[in-house]
Amino acid sequence: MTGGRILLSVQGFNPQRWHELLSRSRTVVLEPDGPRDPSIEYAVVWKHRPGVLSTLPNLKIIFSVGAGVDHIFADPGLPDVPIVRVVAENLTQYMTEYIVWRVLDHQRQGATYRSQQARRIWHEPPQPPADAIRVGIMGFGTLGRAAAKALLSLGFKVNGWSRTPQSMNGVATFHGADGLDAFLNATDILVALLPLTPATRGIIDHKLLGKLNRDNPLGGAFLVNAGRGQLQKDADIARALDDGLIKEASLDVFETEPLPEKSPLWSHPKVFVTPHAAATSDPVHLVPSMLAQMDAFERGEKLQNLVNREAGY
Amino acid sequence: MTGGRILLSVQGFNPQRWHELLSRSRTVVLEPDGPRDPSIEYAVVWKHRPGVLSTLPNLKIIFSVGAGVDHIFADPGLPDVPIVRVVAENLTQYMTEYIVWRVLDHQRQGATYRSQQARRIWHEPPQPPADAIRVGIMGFGTLGRAAAKALLSLGFKVNGWSRTPQSMNGVATFHGADGLDAFLNATDILVALLPLTPATRGIIDHKLLGKLNRDNPLGGAFLVNAGRGQLQKDADIARALDDGLIKEASLDVFETEPLPEKSPLWSHPKVFVTPHAAATSDPVHLVPSMLAQMDAFERGEKLQNLVNREAGY
Repeated sequence: MTGGRILLSVQGFNPQRWHELLSRSRTVVLEPDGPRDPSIEYAVVWKHRPGVLSTLPNLKIIFSVGAGVDHIFADPGLPDVPIVRVVAENLTQYMTEYIVWRVLDHQRQGATYRSQQARRIWHEPPQPPADAIRVGIMGFGTLGRAAAKALLSLGFKVNGWSRTPQSMNGVATFHGADGLDAFLNATDILVALLPLTPATRGIIDHKLLGKLNRDNPLGGAFLVNAGRGQLQKDADIARALDDGLIKEASLDVFETEPLPEKSPLWSHPKVFVTPHAAATSDPVHLVPSMLAQMDAFERGEKLQNLVNREAGY
Repeated sequence: MTGGRILLSVQGFNPQRWHELLSRSRTVVLEPDGPRDPSIEYAVVWKHRPGVLSTLPNLKIIFSVGAGVDHIFADPGLPDVPIVRVVAENLTQYMTEYIVWRVLDHQRQGATYRSQQARRIWHEPPQPPADAIRVGIMGFGTLGRAAAKALLSLGFKVNGWSRTPQSMNGVATFHGADGLDAFLNATDILVALLPLTPATRGIIDHKLLGKLNRDNPLGGAFLVNAGRGQLQKDADIARALDDGLIKEASLDVFETEPLPEKSPLWSHPKVFVTPHAAATSDPVHLVPSMLAQMDAFERGEKLQNLVNREAGY
């Protein structure tokens, strides 16, 4: 094997498949060889051991195995090398499935029907069609735009909000702190796909949820969080549900993961919980693009999907 | 008001909105004026009183307020006048929403996650992407094709089966009795959208469900019936679930509706029940096209969306 060696440093899951697939092309190690290993040029990480990357004198690129990179910035000793995010069709596909699924479950009143079924009640509530409902997507990057496209094709009205101005055919876009209230006021179902940065941490709180549009044909507002758990305040979501600010929530992420057994969200009748499973980072799809970037880099080509350190994503 | 009068004859729901909207253009009655009312030229019906249509000497057209017309053929004294089905964008839209919602809920393992949540279990089962799953649509008319298009755009593989040969880009199509087994063998999630005819009555039985492909990444086959209740044998579905021939079912229609309180389907943990609500026949969208057809007919134009009496749909 030629080319720089790879340090695979992950926490929270078994990296065996990643190891196997990366090892087909390059030498992979789980720990550096000594306190200053010059053979390692690439790091593939998920919540890596803080400090380990700064010990590598020849580190060229850090790759995140998930779409988010906040776990990388959590390391105070992070060296100043390029960080590449994974952008895989597969990841986008999974996320689009999840968002369309959850939006449809709220719009088509799945919780109402499940509750009626348990009581053997045959009753058809008024059913607003998709085009009577406005879905607001917070975070309008690759994932947000793909979800918007799928929702538009099903007939939903779509709003997008992002830090910097964006545009997309058929979507009402808003941006920045100044555009946030107008975006929320025009949104019936809020979909959070934001990256976690100092500016977005805790942004989904009781006050924000209170600004969603509740006066719609579904008789309330809805939250879908498929971004990062620390975007939200778990306790505020429970309170917003109990206060009627929102009617239901689909949560794939939580402030603490796994969701602690004592969390009231587990048993809240208006909450649907999935275990950070909206989009699986499947190494079969992601490893080839990482290896291709390493090869391209060694040929002197430009890196794709670079993380903007200043913005934090 | 000019033009022929309309007899509005429905059972099972309150026709007040239909009456109001039709009355804006023509005179509408709920019963004929005497045993041989010559003033009625049009009938707008849903499970009309058997025999009433044959008393109308000047009846020109029968309109069904729903996409299915089996309720009309249930009348042994049905006069030989043209029957027009409703085809409304709105109806197609609702049906597409319902089918995409139910297919995603099976593919994304909603029942598994709801069961895990009830036990506070944080666990991510293997998640096959949409393109690993084959959805087979039985009945490939306007509704089936619209659903196919939406499912294809989400990445699903789609098969179509119909009585007569059909084709659609990206869809593997099968037809006739000879093509049925191959279609079922290649299908992981079966979506029934067939019209109810003598040939399709009871077609979804234990034997048919046993031919679906259970050896797929979801570990079982699934049924979604959004067509007609009498396509299926309710008891066979319960048995197929208990035998493991199918893993879950989403049923919008049943042999007897409303679903009787004593039906075991209500409490079956693998069944999701909706009360024949997949696609609402909303008169706001359907009445204008009916009135336009009456006007066009009186100008001597050809009728659209005629039912084929021989085929029964």
